Amino acid sequence: MASEPHQDWRFKLHEIIYESNTPAGKAFDVGLLIAIFTSIIVVMLDSVVSIHQKYGDLFKTLELIYSVLFTIEYILRLISIRKPVKYVFSLLGIIDLIALIPSYLSIFFIGAQSLLVFRALRLLRVFRIFKLGHFLTEINFLTQALKGSVRKISIFLLTVLTITVILGSIMYLVEKRENGFSNIPESIYWAIVTITTVGYGDISPVTPIGKFVASVVMLIGYAIIAVPTGIITHDIALASRQKKELPESCPSCSREGHDTDALFCKYCGSSLYR
Amino acid sequence: MASEPHQDWRFKLHEIIYESNTPAGKAFDVGLLIAIFTSIIVVMLDSVVSIHQKYGDLFKTLELIYSVLFTIEYILRLISIRKPVKYVFSLLGIIDLIALIPSYLSIFFIGAQSLLVFRALRLLRVFRIFKLGHFLTEINFLTQALKGSVRKISIFLLTVLTITVILGSIMYLVEKRENGFSNIPESIYWAIVTITTVGYGDISPVTPIGKFVASVVMLIGYAIIAVPTGIITHDIALASRQKKELPESCPSCSREGHDTDALFCKYCGSSLYR
Amino acid sequence: MASEPHQDWRFKLHEIIYESNTPAGKAFDVGLLIAIFTSIIVVMLDSVVSIHQKYGDLFKTLELIYSVLFTIEYILRLISIRKPVKYVFSLLGIIDLIALIPSYLSIFFIGAQSLLVFRALRLLRVFRIFKLGHFLTEINFLTQALKGSVRKISIFLLTVLTITVILGSIMYLVEKRENGFSNIPESIYWAIVTITTVGYGDISPVTPIGKFVASVVMLIGYAIIAVPTGIITHDIALASRQKKELPESCPSCSREGHDTDALFCKYCGSSLYR
Amino acid sequence: MASEPHQDWRFKLHEIIYESNTPAGKAFDVGLLIAIFTSIIVVMLDSVVSIHQKYGDLFKTLELIYSVLFTIEYILRLISIRKPVKYVFSLLGIIDLIALIPSYLSIFFIGAQSLLVFRALRLLRVFRIFKLGHFLTEINFLTQALKGSVRKISIFLLTVLTITVILGSIMYLVEKRENGFSNIPESIYWAIVTITTVGYGDISPVTPIGKFVASVVMLIGYAIIAVPTGIITHDIALASRQKKELPESCPSCSREGHDTDALFCKYCGSSLYR
Repeated sequence: MASEPHQDWRFKLHEIIYESNTPAGKAFDVGLLIAIFTSIIVVMLDSVVSIHQKYGDLFKTLELIYSVLFTIEYILRLISIRKPVKYVFSLLGIIDLIALIPSYLSIFFIGAQSLLVFRALRLLRVFRIFKLGHFLTEINFLTQALKGSVRKISIFLLTVLTITVILGSIMYLVEKRENGFSNIPESIYWAIVTITTVGYGDISPVTPIGKFVASVVMLIGYAIIAVPTGIITHDIALASRQKKELPESCPSCSREGHDTDALFCKYCGSSLYR
Repeated sequence: MASEPHQDWRFKLHEIIYESNTPAGKAFDVGLLIAIFTSIIVVMLDSVVSIHQKYGDLFKTLELIYSVLFTIEYILRLISIRKPVKYVFSLLGIIDLIALIPSYLSIFFIGAQSLLVFRALRLLRVFRIFKLGHFLTEINFLTQALKGSVRKISIFLLTVLTITVILGSIMYLVEKRENGFSNIPESIYWAIVTITTVGYGDISPVTPIGKFVASVVMLIGYAIIAVPTGIITHDIALASRQKKELPESCPSCSREGHDTDALFCKYCGSSLYR
Repeated sequence: MASEPHQDWRFKLHEIIYESNTPAGKAFDVGLLIAIFTSIIVVMLDSVVSIHQKYGDLFKTLELIYSVLFTIEYILRLISIRKPVKYVFSLLGIIDLIALIPSYLSIFFIGAQSLLVFRALRLLRVFRIFKLGHFLTEINFLTQALKGSVRKISIFLLTVLTITVILGSIMYLVEKRENGFSNIPESIYWAIVTITTVGYGDISPVTPIGKFVASVVMLIGYAIIAVPTGIITHDIALASRQKKELPESCPSCSREGHDTDALFCKYCGSSLYR
Repeated sequence: MASEPHQDWRFKLHEIIYESNTPAGKAFDVGLLIAIFTSIIVVMLDSVVSIHQKYGDLFKTLELIYSVLFTIEYILRLISIRKPVKYVFSLLGIIDLIALIPSYLSIFFIGAQSLLVFRALRLLRVFRIFKLGHFLTEINFLTQALKGSVRKISIFLLTVLTITVILGSIMYLVEKRENGFSNIPESIYWAIVTITTVGYGDISPVTPIGKFVASVVMLIGYAIIAVPTGIITHDIALASRQKKELPESCPSCSREGHDTDALFCKYCGSSLYR
């Protein structure tokens, strides 16, 4: 009985931190969003030599403040949730933790300075806020559609990789070391740059035969880029159909596949909505 | 009774300026189109140093004439429309106004010379003419389809941006300042150039590890470019289905969603076509 | 009665030249294909300085032979067809003629030498042969699907062009002449190179603001490339459905929209196939 | 009767080598996968000059071991299969053999050293392992979908090639030899680099007219890249529908094309599921 006000306090905190239905919850989300974005901007600006020389100390102080703020937030998250262990090992919990670590490492190790870059991982936390917003349905829809594509896309990427390894090896033979294709990994890098139509131009074929092979690579890349698109388009269409069909098995004969607006089961005639 | 001929005159003017059913209306549209395109060409040519030195004065005179013409047109639009205030604050009205401002600014301020570039915004006015042509249905169809995609596309772009920030930061660590990745914003710029498969080659990885990370970025970009395509294709298909289903609510129970070939309402059994 | 053997000879010639059901017709097609491809290769090789110096005279002779051959073929086509005038002004007839002209021009005018390049247009004649082969159905299907997209694609291209003109003008302001954006047409060229994700790198942004604008252009290009894909995918699906649905209006009540395998009209119950 | 234990031994070997249901079969597959990947890595590293100088001899020994291993594997495959001749001339058999040849050639001929690069073809053997895994359904689905697209894609590629030949010839005229467009094949190479949106930038237009033509080429490439995507998306959708419709011919009148949820044949009225 004595712990009830405490529980109440924890419940309120949970509502503020994890949900966004209340004004306080919304304010917290907006504040977190601002903190994340400004902290990322600090990381970015700090990497520019001329700005670092001028405002380096300010950035250090700001970073310290951000670290303290995010640490407090992390602790509050741990306190206010029912199953803190489950949170720590959830995807979002791991991201929250990883985004915290580099700041602390840089305090204890001087060599870990470069790890500060991983503070950019904080940006991933933005998705936490969107997960709670109106975008949830769309995100769910997209992830469901893409899940169905993962296997097909990975077969596709394996095929592309095999093609690049073989074509890269051929180009290494054709173009020789003098023309920038100095070894097979380099040639494979070129093949990937070409087949994905990025085309930096840091390495490009010089001999006529090399240019011919390169043209073939490009046309292959041009034609097969259509494959993942076709796969994903198809799976988005499938996911969209399934979304509609979810509450559809007949409650009396449990057969599926009714129209989304049907009122009665078309197999046994009993009402679909009792 | 006395104002009727005036009203008649205003009605005729409206027909000429805003519609294109009459020969005069069509002639006005064609004239406006020519004025817009030639004025844009003047802006373009005037920016070329050698041409500016030769014909700079001619261009100035032409620009003055265009400014006067577009101002007259704008005033006529205001006069001939019933609710001028509504027009001024409509999307097309704002574009019309913005396209006028730079010319006048350059008269009063000498420093505003560079704003002349914004005369290029006049090109947007071309869509006004198409809005009145046969393209209306297609434009409506496309905008309706894309409206449905906006939310999904923005989630996609946010994901891409997060990926580029994180990969850019990693590349900054991997490639170091000497190789062109001089700071994190620069590295993010590189990541965007790479993931969108633009690939200028002004910054490109030099170290083997950098090339490996770059290859991963490219393959990711290659695979995920399919996502917005899938989304938009799906939403175009949806929009096309909805277009067909428009006149479909039952006249007696007003429920929607009937098959395109249904004759009777499937909810209440009354005829859909009375 | 006397003209019958002549007619017969003309009919046989027509069969050989215009059709490919007979062995002679097939042999003619294969021969024409070889003549077209080898003549294109001659044009190509002749443009290479080192090869031209060695075999220039041989190429000249070969070109003369090709010209004579294609002229004879053109005359035979005129003779063997029933309505020669209609052929001359048909798409294929015009291509046949255009492919002939440059050779003759170069005989009469010395300055017309450079027009020889237009002999490459002969390649278009390859489609004549495919039109007669098994590919006809596929070509018909594709052209029908693309016809439906033309209007939407042109709206899309107009939008892209407007975006490039406006963004090109902005970049001209942002990057200034020193950085390669020497005038607005040049900047528009850069915007097109960027938004289409070609990315030569001959002009690329140098200032931080320029790089930021460029990143926005790239992400726009990345997102909107999906639009034409969506349009064409949709129209291919439509064309495929229409192909199946062609013979579908009920012969008794003339209403459309029956399933492709329906035997009886679903509106009036009479047989669809009498 | 005496040969039975032998047959049994052959059967077991077949199960290990060709199938992956047993633990031994799975171990064999994993071992083969590791051997293929590590042998490819050896090929790659051996092509890097600095690494070759250090570990060249080690790589030679490793390569010898791989050659022996793959030869033994090939012989075991021949022994354990029922119809060895059929295997030798099957697609997978030919790949297995081609992957073996270069190692042996380099022993007998010194000049054949460069053929070692073709050991990269071993990577193709990776698909053998996937063919036996869970990916089989997906691969079948994809190849079926792509088979339907082959003809349409080849028409598309022929059209693209014709466009590049003609545009390349025009650019050769427009840009002249000084600007990198030194002959027509080179110009066609440029057109392919541009239309596929690869855009190396090794050759890029210099004159204003050249830049204009290039812009047109890019916009064409931008618009028509949608075509293969549309084709493949459509054929994937078709393949997916056919997959579902497979067990659908009526058992009494054997006509096909019933709705996926139909219970009775719509042609003869008898039950589809007896």
